Amino acid sequence: MLQYALYSGLGARAMNPEKIRIVLVETSHPGNIGAVARAMKNMGLTRLYLVAPEQFPDPQATWRAVSAGDVLESARVVSSLDEAIGDCSFVVGASARERRIPWPVLDARRAASDIAEASLRGEVAVLFGREDNGLSNEELMRCNLHLAIPTSDEYSSLNLAMAVQVVCYELHMLASSDRLPESADAQWDSPPATQENMERFFVHLEQTLSEIGFLNPAAPRQLMPRLRRLYSRIRLDEMELNILRGMLTETQKRVVPEDWAARARERR
Amino acid sequence: MLQYALYSGLGARAMNPEKIRIVLVETSHPGNIGAVARAMKNMGLTRLYLVAPEQFPDPQATWRAVSAGDVLESARVVSSLDEAIGDCSFVVGASARERRIPWPVLDARRAASDIAEASLRGEVAVLFGREDNGLSNEELMRCNLHLAIPTSDEYSSLNLAMAVQVVCYELHMLASSDRLPESADAQWDSPPATQENMERFFVHLEQTLSEIGFLNPAAPRQLMPRLRRLYSRIRLDEMELNILRGMLTETQKRVVPEDWAARARERR
Repeated sequence: MLQYALYSGLGARAMNPEKIRIVLVETSHPGNIGAVARAMKNMGLTRLYLVAPEQFPDPQATWRAVSAGDVLESARVVSSLDEAIGDCSFVVGASARERRIPWPVLDARRAASDIAEASLRGEVAVLFGREDNGLSNEELMRCNLHLAIPTSDEYSSLNLAMAVQVVCYELHMLASSDRLPESADAQWDSPPATQENMERFFVHLEQTLSEIGFLNPAAPRQLMPRLRRLYSRIRLDEMELNILRGMLTETQKRVVPEDWAARARERR
Repeated sequence: MLQYALYSGLGARAMNPEKIRIVLVETSHPGNIGAVARAMKNMGLTRLYLVAPEQFPDPQATWRAVSAGDVLESARVVSSLDEAIGDCSFVVGASARERRIPWPVLDARRAASDIAEASLRGEVAVLFGREDNGLSNEELMRCNLHLAIPTSDEYSSLNLAMAVQVVCYELHMLASSDRLPESADAQWDSPPATQENMERFFVHLEQTLSEIGFLNPAAPRQLMPRLRRLYSRIRLDEMELNILRGMLTETQKRVVPEDWAARARERR
């Protein structure tokens, strides 16, 4: 458990996704609404509120939602922000700009943690503003917390649906990080090779390399240490070790001993 | 430093973004290519390779790229995966499917750490496949590591550009997490109120509440403890404290003492 707490930075969190709504304020492009619906469903969120969208419903929205048509269909279209957040006890606003009066602000990862916690106690709204200039100062003053997605200084304006994707992804990571394997080999199909079997392999390898004349036992140089380092680094599994041992055995069977080879050459 | 290491889970990492390329394999929709260019530039990456795109260049790509036109213009269009990754020493493939032979696989956050590390030693490619069915088995076998973005079980297929966005975001977070403020109040404009000033405020508050007859000193109940909890919880700053003290002082000036008020009522 400690490992996962370290990993997610703030610990895997209990969360109630049913209590979290995404609120889009005066979205211009219906395609973005569809992309938001898909981004939400991909990350396990389903409650979408649209405050005075310019064009909705719209075929562009449906097309971009792909298999998240249900999120679009159940979206609540309202005419004012009040209607969208009136019953919420925690409101977070996505913000890129600096405000005249600084507001509490966190990056998306830390904000996700606050959102998760608040979702256990009441309704939570995450607000995203217009494509061209985000949320107004008045809208941002309705928020308990502002959320900023870290970006490059050179180009900081994220597409609306991308911003929603990042926030929903962070929420999903918070909720699921204790189920993610820590190691790249977690789903491996064969157990790792034991030290004992690795040593047998190195003996076999050395013998075979000597038999084919690649290793001179009188002047071995750094050949075996380098091969040991190579095969230790990749942490072989038992099946891979068996394959390599099989290759060595077959090689040994076909190798003509040095004196036989010399005699064969003489006869030619 | 330890705090940030805890926060990013794997520590803020040195990284060479110039050595990291995003490779899109046989992309169908030019709009996705544009959205990828923007997602990359938003997160500080600029090197885009396109393997046999169906339509490129295209006005849709340019439109979706918005201010990342430079990333599009410098994109390398090649006809085979070999041309795109031949000089790379670390190749990561985005993969959603289970493979017949398990491959080393990590979630996007952990994979970002490996990508960052590899970028310090050589060229790194991150591969994203076709919109409809991702990377082929042959392409995935060219990879050192597979990368999976955790999603909801119900709908796991991310839009191509969204997947790129998440990976580029994780890379940016890794590189920048030691510059992110940990606290929501990091940019605050007034210092936090001292304990001493808070106590003066509570005395002033209690006095005023008594003068306006809201607090009965003979039966104070839980009023002051509840107000103490309220104002302690929000951690006032000095300017806010001054505003509240000012409100109390003005209130006191206007308050008619109880006996004067009684006499005034009698006279009416």
